[in-house]
Amino acid sequence: MKPTLLLTAGSLAWAKPSGYKIDYNHAPPNLSTLANYSLFETWRPRAHVLPPFGQIGDPCMHYTDPKTGLFHVGWLHLGAAGATTDDLVTYHDLNPDGAPFIRAGGTNDPIAVFDGAVIPSGIDGKPTLLYTSVSYLPIQWTINYIRGSETQSLAVSKDGGRNFTKLQQGPVIPSPPFALNVTGFRDPFVFQNSRLDSLLDSKPGTWYNVISGGVHGKGPSVFLYRQHDPEFQYWEYLGQWWHEKANSTWGEGLWAGRYGFNFEVANIFGLDEEGYNSKGEVFATLGAEWSLEPIVPEVSDFREMLWAAGNVSLEDGDVKFSPTMVGKLDWGHSAYAAAGKVLPSSSKASSKSGAPDRFISYLWLTGDYYGTLKQFPTQQQNWTGSLLLPRELSVGKISNVVDNELAREKGSWRVAKNESGVVELDTLKQVISRETLSNLTKKESFSEEGRTISKPGSTAFKRHPKSKFYVLKTSISFPSSARNSDLKAGFQILASEHESTTIYYQFSNETVLIDRSKTSAAARTTSDIDSRNEAGRLRLFDIVEKGEERIETLDLTIVVDNSIVEVHANDRFSLSTWARSWYADSTEIRFFHDGEGEVKFGDVSIYEGLFDAWPERKR
Amino acid sequence: MKPTLLLTAGSLAWAKPSGYKIDYNHAPPNLSTLANYSLFETWRPRAHVLPPFGQIGDPCMHYTDPKTGLFHVGWLHLGAAGATTDDLVTYHDLNPDGAPFIRAGGTNDPIAVFDGAVIPSGIDGKPTLLYTSVSYLPIQWTINYIRGSETQSLAVSKDGGRNFTKLQQGPVIPSPPFALNVTGFRDPFVFQNSRLDSLLDSKPGTWYNVISGGVHGKGPSVFLYRQHDPEFQYWEYLGQWWHEKANSTWGEGLWAGRYGFNFEVANIFGLDEEGYNSKGEVFATLGAEWSLEPIVPEVSDFREMLWAAGNVSLEDGDVKFSPTMVGKLDWGHSAYAAAGKVLPSSSKASSKSGAPDRFISYLWLTGDYYGTLKQFPTQQQNWTGSLLLPRELSVGKISNVVDNELAREKGSWRVAKNESGVVELDTLKQVISRETLSNLTKKESFSEEGRTISKPGSTAFKRHPKSKFYVLKTSISFPSSARNSDLKAGFQILASEHESTTIYYQFSNETVLIDRSKTSAAARTTSDIDSRNEAGRLRLFDIVEKGEERIETLDLTIVVDNSIVEVHANDRFSLSTWARSWYADSTEIRFFHDGEGEVKFGDVSIYEGLFDAWPERKR
Repeated sequence: MKPTLLLTAGSLAWAKPSGYKIDYNHAPPNLSTLANYSLFETWRPRAHVLPPFGQIGDPCMHYTDPKTGLFHVGWLHLGAAGATTDDLVTYHDLNPDGAPFIRAGGTNDPIAVFDGAVIPSGIDGKPTLLYTSVSYLPIQWTINYIRGSETQSLAVSKDGGRNFTKLQQGPVIPSPPFALNVTGFRDPFVFQNSRLDSLLDSKPGTWYNVISGGVHGKGPSVFLYRQHDPEFQYWEYLGQWWHEKANSTWGEGLWAGRYGFNFEVANIFGLDEEGYNSKGEVFATLGAEWSLEPIVPEVSDFREMLWAAGNVSLEDGDVKFSPTMVGKLDWGHSAYAAAGKVLPSSSKASSKSGAPDRFISYLWLTGDYYGTLKQFPTQQQNWTGSLLLPRELSVGKISNVVDNELAREKGSWRVAKNESGVVELDTLKQVISRETLSNLTKKESFSEEGRTISKPGSTAFKRHPKSKFYVLKTSISFPSSARNSDLKAGFQILASEHESTTIYYQFSNETVLIDRSKTSAAARTTSDIDSRNEAGRLRLFDIVEKGEERIETLDLTIVVDNSIVEVHANDRFSLSTWARSWYADSTEIRFFHDGEGEVKFGDVSIYEGLFDAWPERKR
Repeated sequence: MKPTLLLTAGSLAWAKPSGYKIDYNHAPPNLSTLANYSLFETWRPRAHVLPPFGQIGDPCMHYTDPKTGLFHVGWLHLGAAGATTDDLVTYHDLNPDGAPFIRAGGTNDPIAVFDGAVIPSGIDGKPTLLYTSVSYLPIQWTINYIRGSETQSLAVSKDGGRNFTKLQQGPVIPSPPFALNVTGFRDPFVFQNSRLDSLLDSKPGTWYNVISGGVHGKGPSVFLYRQHDPEFQYWEYLGQWWHEKANSTWGEGLWAGRYGFNFEVANIFGLDEEGYNSKGEVFATLGAEWSLEPIVPEVSDFREMLWAAGNVSLEDGDVKFSPTMVGKLDWGHSAYAAAGKVLPSSSKASSKSGAPDRFISYLWLTGDYYGTLKQFPTQQQNWTGSLLLPRELSVGKISNVVDNELAREKGSWRVAKNESGVVELDTLKQVISRETLSNLTKKESFSEEGRTISKPGSTAFKRHPKSKFYVLKTSISFPSSARNSDLKAGFQILASEHESTTIYYQFSNETVLIDRSKTSAAARTTSDIDSRNEAGRLRLFDIVEKGEERIETLDLTIVVDNSIVEVHANDRFSLSTWARSWYADSTEIRFFHDGEGEVKFGDVSIYEGLFDAWPERKR
């Protein structure tokens, strides 16, 4: 997360200008000239998590209340605010108007409250928040670190999470490790882990906590701490359990971007093929910050949202994490700061759906590109940013893969089994949470028949959604000749004569692209409507099926929630972004083909309407 | 120091009620009924260090400015304020009206600024203050310690000490040692020491710092730290280099009181017989806090101002301080919180007087018994408390002592040499700073002839001082028969028909007493004029002189500075207190004798007038 963002958080009250009518059938004016609040509904999502108004920052501080079984989802907003859910579909604000459950301004956090994490049964059995309390600014990896700017403090809720009351005492982690010139030291993430318990000879169920940051001149780090006492007052420092050389990459940097100079929002958790397992393989999600040379003070150009799986071992008495595969949790440039939490099978949501223990993660989709799009009509919209749909993470398997160079590359997968020329690959499986997705796709609205297309061009669907709220599901098959060709195939959505957003797979660089150059007529009249392309790397492996080799099918689930587009592919790829179409009739969908080669589009299912995640909010 | 005191510090402006006349020739009314400020001059000292008005707390933050050679004396007052001196006689407020050079209210010290110490050439060669920054109250060894209530922060002066600007960053020592349940963690004292450099293999000239406190359930401690970097940002923790069992004593507890439960204001310094020597024997001054059983939360009954000399050695890799002799720096119940500093021979004061490097210490004389005398007419007086006269500390020798049980007891001395039945004892030599004393006693005003008195009673001097501002110097010899007898001998001062303060030596318990039961007529009309006796233990050894044994002579220097009485004896004993006589004619001096035995009083010199330590202040 970027600290300066928090200071620009609007505290505008929710209000709709009466009698003000926006005309979505004609070209937009410069939107910055419109009345405040007039664009509130224009691009507002329906099924996503965001506050009733104002800015949302990093998701964080989620937990399941053991008393109620409700899952609490939190996010930075005037401090931190949150909502509960019993089904991962609808959410209920913890406080009226989405008011925060913790605010900055205490002795430990006069400047800001940054990300934290909750121990569900903490002090006195109450939900206990460990969070970054901020005393000095500026903070960024590009400048000298102000000592004491970030400390870690405790707050406890005695009212079901509506308020977290800060302990009247100093921080429980009052400084980074001794004499370490850190680039950052924030976003504590608390967790339990059986593997660490064994390795470190801890009492089973011991809490750990990782703090994200880095060391100037060295590189990004994850600092590991262990619970020292039942009151969570002291946390024993166990070292930089994960450190990478500054601005280095995993492999060639193609599959997991850069490690950058500073880590943020690291989560640590155990997974198996079913979901969360404290004894399972150790996974991490984390944010990496970097810039192009020359590094400009107080400018961090890039943020990457990574995941990693790795080995945990003792080296010279210190516990270390060594990645075995690393990837991107989401390739969207605005998608960052994922925060996850164990959702136990005993939670209300899981009890209803029959789901096992899961690790559920929410990403942030910044609405103003980390505070840099200052000309965006923020006052007119009166909200900024959203979370992405919750995702379930588990160990993923890609079976029947041909054992060739494509499979053997150091990527966001690793070879697990090898049987006579066919391998099974491990990776991170990530899908929209089952309850969420099944509710989004409860009833097919219509389907467009599949077809084979071999010539460049776009082909409009026979029927279009009536709105900009839907899920599109389909799969696309490519011939073996497509590999290394100039073939591109996919869809145009939110399309009309004036606008279109093109989502396609491109073999030349194994990339899913979202071309936003024609997405929004508003971008032509208004500054800082982001129209840069988005792209993410997805390898379609060579698969052996019934003795024949073929290229893996591209399975697509595209969620269009007004301006938010989430592209999910093959249970292991996500690319999410904003697509702020203007025209009311920009609802067309078209098949898209370019380059040379025959593409088999499967039947396309459209599930229109989505659900309203906030039934209790007035609109 | 007692934190709560600071909050009661008055910020009353200096003002004298005009036309208001106090009658010191008749019995006083209840002084609390008088107009504010009306008692400003009544008991105000002349030669002592105190702010122009308001309350003074602990002395601290002294240093010699290497640029000017001026000695800066500091004290807690609305934060901390100070003055400079070039002769240890007159002082010059650093700021108009004695305004502070540092105030509480920053991010690190929202509640209070507690004691600190100055590195004269610190950050960028500037005077650099390391002080206790306070974020939470209450703090006391009798209650649970609030984590983070006391941290240690830096401030730098760029204007010759008139202002110390806090670094815009968090504390440099952000917490006590890990997971230690301390009773206190304050009053950092910075120092250099050659012995520690050698023992710890530090770079010569390395700065160390001790923080005073203790551990709940264990006892009082001095925590040792070593400078880690040239910017004084980090201080390496070297352990509890001095720890005593809770409420234990040195020996039988007769010569150095109790160690109590919590240490405060520890100073560490090297001494030889000349004065300060970084290679000399390691000495400490420190405050000890304790209470009688049962301990009442937030009540610390007793404070003792100790000194100690000791061995410094490595034990299991940790450096430890083991006392070899321990005593009281002052036996007065109101005398506490001594703060000393090296005064180099190059300082202005020492250049003029030709003194070598010295360690100069100022004690605090609380004016309201650590905030407990709440009925004292504070508003009427408009000032509270003072510092005592500066003292020079050095290694003291007591020669030609008979090697008997008296010499061999575990006391505030130790046997240094032993030659055929005669021993030389080491102790702490402490005398009023040479410049101060020589100025106080520049010209004898009159002398009272010595005499031998063998019968109980008081004998008035032929001549009395005209005022309550003078120094009395004399010596008293006792016959060998006095040992273990009921003999008492001394003086009555500030005496008249209504009042008198009796200062005497009493052999039965080897004690110097100040009987204040008849000190003040005001105590009979006004609450909280303290009239409790004061007592301090002083052993007069058996001495061999010209082959004959005799009891050591009692050498007395008594400073009467209006209400402040300092009794100094034999260069190794001090007992200071308040004696708030009321009547204008309470200036008589009388010889005092009680019990059985012949006492030889030497000639008594009276030096009247003292000096005005504050020539620039309007009165």
